[in-house]
Amino acid sequence: MPHIALPQGLPGIRAAMAFRPETAKPLNELVEVLLHNPNTLAPGERELIATYVSYLNDCFYCQTIHGAIAAANLNGDEELVKRVKADFQHADISAKLKALLVIAAKVQKGGKHVTAADVASARDHGATDLEIHDTVLIAAAFCMYNRYVDGLDTVQPRDEAAYIERGKQVAREGYVAVSKSYLPAEKEAR
Amino acid sequence: MPHIALPQGLPGIRAAMAFRPETAKPLNELVEVLLHNPNTLAPGERELIATYVSYLNDCFYCQTIHGAIAAANLNGDEELVKRVKADFQHADISAKLKALLVIAAKVQKGGKHVTAADVASARDHGATDLEIHDTVLIAAAFCMYNRYVDGLDTVQPRDEAAYIERGKQVAREGYVAVSKSYLPAEKEAR
Repeated sequence: MPHIALPQGLPGIRAAMAFRPETAKPLNELVEVLLHNPNTLAPGERELIATYVSYLNDCFYCQTIHGAIAAANLNGDEELVKRVKADFQHADISAKLKALLVIAAKVQKGGKHVTAADVASARDHGATDLEIHDTVLIAAAFCMYNRYVDGLDTVQPRDEAAYIERGKQVAREGYVAVSKSYLPAEKEAR
Repeated sequence: MPHIALPQGLPGIRAAMAFRPETAKPLNELVEVLLHNPNTLAPGERELIATYVSYLNDCFYCQTIHGAIAAANLNGDEELVKRVKADFQHADISAKLKALLVIAAKVQKGGKHVTAADVASARDHGATDLEIHDTVLIAAAFCMYNRYVDGLDTVQPRDEAAYIERGKQVAREGYVAVSKSYLPAEKEAR
């Protein structure tokens, strides 16, 4: 049972967002820019970073929904998502993404763990400053989202099939659009 | 030296925000709602939560600027800010705020560390569900901001006097308003 009286019938972060639409708005806008908007890193790659950090933080809801969104962006390749979580150095992803995942894992432990050598390695594999910036902020942001979801003890259904359907919808429509189904219209939220 | 080519002459998160205005916008809006907008927890109390979490995460820039904003909201009482960081259980703050700081410290370690007993204690001392929600999200959000600031190795000046002046301005005007001095106008940022 959640620690506070969250609206019923909504899983994970959606219940927390429906409880507090004023903070839901920037939270959805941030993840929309970081994971959904066009960028030189594909949405599937950015969702893998979010999934991996959520896995390191042991947040079931976040790693499952973002794993599903990642798979939806990667031709349904759920095996690749599992492989990245278990052992990304031997997964079938680019050397650049592996170097960015090294940085993301350091950020998950704490910002000071990131070294100049980690950043040089990502750059050697073709990462731009914007891609390094976004990797740091995606990893940092999921240290927030994961703590928000688990810190309120939100309801996190164990049936992964529901996440897969939702993942396809978010991959298609984006975070801000799908949030409209459970958030009040913006005028009411203010 | 920062890990990526951030704009020069801006300290801490401001350089990162100027580098990426698209993410700066929701980052500023989130902290505005959580720390500056009117609420049953006073801005000084909420800034103390942000300062304490930034202290636990060992982020010099964030704990110093939010400590200065907290002090500006608390009649300039910098000693109280120092006391909260060193030993909040014996600081001159309400029992409710102490119970909320216990929750914030748990969130800093990880969301699953928060227990029903921690939440019951906060409620026994008069905390509302909204105050508990916001405490969890403030603590989670500073686990993001701190990692963002340190993960990019931003410039963090050691001269605390500069933070005190800036703290007064942010306490007065808020985060979104002061960010306009170093962020491009919204039309350009999109």
